[in-house]
Amino acid sequence: MAHPSDPNCIFCKIIAGKIPCYKIHEDENVVAFLDIGPLTRGHALVIPKGHYANLLEAPPEVVGKVAAEIPAIARAVLAAVGARAFNLLANSGAEAQQSVEHLHFHILPRLSGGSFTIPWLPGKLEAGEGAALAETVRKNLHA
Amino acid sequence: MAHPSDPNCIFCKIIAGKIPCYKIHEDENVVAFLDIGPLTRGHALVIPKGHYANLLEAPPEVVGKVAAEIPAIARAVLAAVGARAFNLLANSGAEAQQSVEHLHFHILPRLSGGSFTIPWLPGKLEAGEGAALAETVRKNLHA
Repeated sequence: MAHPSDPNCIFCKIIAGKIPCYKIHEDENVVAFLDIGPLTRGHALVIPKGHYANLLEAPPEVVGKVAAEIPAIARAVLAAVGARAFNLLANSGAEAQQSVEHLHFHILPRLSGGSFTIPWLPGKLEAGEGAALAETVRKNLHA
Repeated sequence: MAHPSDPNCIFCKIIAGKIPCYKIHEDENVVAFLDIGPLTRGHALVIPKGHYANLLEAPPEVVGKVAAEIPAIARAVLAAVGARAFNLLANSGAEAQQSVEHLHFHILPRLSGGSFTIPWLPGKLEAGEGAALAETVRKNLHA
């Protein structure tokens, strides 16, 4: 199966074997390898072989196929580093801290007492705002 | 199609209509609604109708089906709040800040200058450690 590719993309070069990586998985549609700038020990990336900028650009079937590989890959990563928990993260767009513009899911193993944490400062969704916002989203979804 | 359900799970109660939500999408397998404790404006959750604790417990086909709905839902959410970027986040396990033990994906719209940010302090994966760790993961994956 042919995948779209971008000759200037670092992840496409990794997929093509032109740049080395610490590969942990490869199948027809997906490659997974260790992040060389890990946020936590065992930080791994799972990417489609096809070049799509991010979740906003990738076809749903590509997203589904990549995501379906994540449970098994995550379990193997966690076992390797002795963790039981992880964050799955996919940054989509520059304002969301996406760096490489080839869809990638971060697997971030988490250990109790580790230094990485996601700041969780929830606001409050007021009833009127929630109803109006949900209606707008539904209209956008079915437009 | 019957989905596994937990009578004590707040998300299963939302799916069953016993607790209200600001619903933005529903199909055979998936429900999406606004988070009432939003980290950013438009913060939404996408969950499978079946009760699985997290990505480590859910069958791959369930993860794939839920994930495949995310691009369309995310585009509709972003359009509603005027954002072009988002973080997709799934916390799996208590050490990874998972609160509700029913698999859920956070869609976090991001605007330039917003207050939410993911701390990005990368370490460095040394060559020897990377090779050894990747080999251990591959062995775990194919054990």
